[in-house]
Amino acid sequence: MKNIKITSTGSYLPNTKITDKELEEKLKLEKGYIKKRTGIETRYYAKEEKIEDMAKKAVLDLLKKEEIKDIDLIITSTTTTNNLMPGISNYIQEELNIENAITLDILAGCSGYINALDVARLYILAGISKKALVVGVDILSKYVDEEDVATAVVLSDGAGAILLEETTEEKMYFSQIEANIDKNKILTCKSDEKIQMKGKEVYKYAVTKTVENINKLLEKAELTLDDIKYIVPHQSNIKIIKGITSRLKVDENKVYKNIKDVGNTFCGSIPIAIDQMKKENLLKDKDKIILIGYGGGLNTGSILLEI
Amino acid sequence: MKNIKITSTGSYLPNTKITDKELEEKLKLEKGYIKKRTGIETRYYAKEEKIEDMAKKAVLDLLKKEEIKDIDLIITSTTTTNNLMPGISNYIQEELNIENAITLDILAGCSGYINALDVARLYILAGISKKALVVGVDILSKYVDEEDVATAVVLSDGAGAILLEETTEEKMYFSQIEANIDKNKILTCKSDEKIQMKGKEVYKYAVTKTVENINKLLEKAELTLDDIKYIVPHQSNIKIIKGITSRLKVDENKVYKNIKDVGNTFCGSIPIAIDQMKKENLLKDKDKIILIGYGGGLNTGSILLEI
Repeated sequence: MKNIKITSTGSYLPNTKITDKELEEKLKLEKGYIKKRTGIETRYYAKEEKIEDMAKKAVLDLLKKEEIKDIDLIITSTTTTNNLMPGISNYIQEELNIENAITLDILAGCSGYINALDVARLYILAGISKKALVVGVDILSKYVDEEDVATAVVLSDGAGAILLEETTEEKMYFSQIEANIDKNKILTCKSDEKIQMKGKEVYKYAVTKTVENINKLLEKAELTLDDIKYIVPHQSNIKIIKGITSRLKVDENKVYKNIKDVGNTFCGSIPIAIDQMKKENLLKDKDKIILIGYGGGLNTGSILLEI
Repeated sequence: MKNIKITSTGSYLPNTKITDKELEEKLKLEKGYIKKRTGIETRYYAKEEKIEDMAKKAVLDLLKKEEIKDIDLIITSTTTTNNLMPGISNYIQEELNIENAITLDILAGCSGYINALDVARLYILAGISKKALVVGVDILSKYVDEEDVATAVVLSDGAGAILLEETTEEKMYFSQIEANIDKNKILTCKSDEKIQMKGKEVYKYAVTKTVENINKLLEKAELTLDDIKYIVPHQSNIKIIKGITSRLKVDENKVYKNIKDVGNTFCGSIPIAIDQMKKENLLKDKDKIILIGYGGGLNTGSILLEI
């Protein structure tokens, strides 16, 4: 029986750090407003870089050279690409000089990384891929209306990457992915427009649907939250994360958070978090973790996997 | 053992028909130039419509109402979407009023429909989906430089859709999907730019790589072209299609062509062709066909499936 294993991780945050102080002055907000409402202190903007360059840097952070040549599948999730063709995955292939691979980019809202990881696993299970690179990247600063407090104080740029490999070790994996109709268009972005977000409605959707989704996932896995070492939520906003934590009645220490330093990076969010957890040595062999994505679509998805 | 079966097809071409005559006058080309070079007589432009509306119309062409509610997976391939979130698949979900489904859009160049179909099959094989809607749509008129003869005479707008269902019947399926580095950037498009194509280099790539790709596919399937009822190539340009036909040494009548009337619709190309073949009653139960995609990326892919 084939299973999947995370064998390496990487991430990249751009150089331009934007502090709350800077944004509060610009937006004429009182001191402390942003931290209080969002839990964010800093976010990063890619001033000169292209989105594909950010993705490449996350991948280069991950890989040892001898691992590159065997990669046979590259999937990138994004919501802010301008690379219609070649796609970001093609640019990564070029950077790594991989002669032949399956490459595709996935658009599935802020939770697209969940879809990307799930598709990569199916390719590994089917025996088509043995070593898959799954990347999440967004360059939200380009799609932020600088005067829109709701998005300007939250959104950030970043990229993360995971190397997923076939293993014969027993590794539990379950996913629960769904999309619901966004009747009121509470979270939208066109390639030639800025991101529009109705904060209160997004909060309500995110907390309610995510908790429902995780409960379905746990039921499928026949596990409870006691069996889970860490929950890694999409780092959207501290209030949403706290809302989910409280509704799940789960110990706050089990819920990984890096939003204070990183901000909300959409598709970069989950792989950046996993990379940081790896680098902080938080993840041990056989730990069961739950990744949670939610956002535009409305797409919601969670994955329970074993390290 | 689970297999997949095409249970319904649909397509949509916009109302505004553009003739060679019109384009030849506009581009100051001699009469007959376009037909001779490309094999195309007419193409269709979506003047007022949005890409998601074209996709919806292809899907509505396909479905009987009682079939809709069970769709649990919607995958749309495109190269020209401006719908970063919600995606086109989300808009289709909304149009069909499907309460819950997995939805994602795939960017993988002109051959993205091959990737979309392949991913949908993996979801069905894994038991996660029972009824998947796989859509291909492009609105190339928006990305055409009207004065660039190479692309202006070839590109067209269109959408196609296939309903893919789980079956326990024996149905052969093989896929061979690959991407190679586009060193010389012979076929590119950014969301804020027009499509750039180096015609001669695209011809060379398309014919060479596609033939290699099909040979790998046949080897995997342990079949020869004699076992194949139809080859359905991406309808890019009659010269490329003829080049592939001649290199494969396959009977020209086995190679389905609708490019004369439809033009090159990128991701719409293959599902529109399959829909037309179904409507022309060309496809019978147990026929083995090969679908071939190639284009920007450079992504190349073929699927051998049994009707």
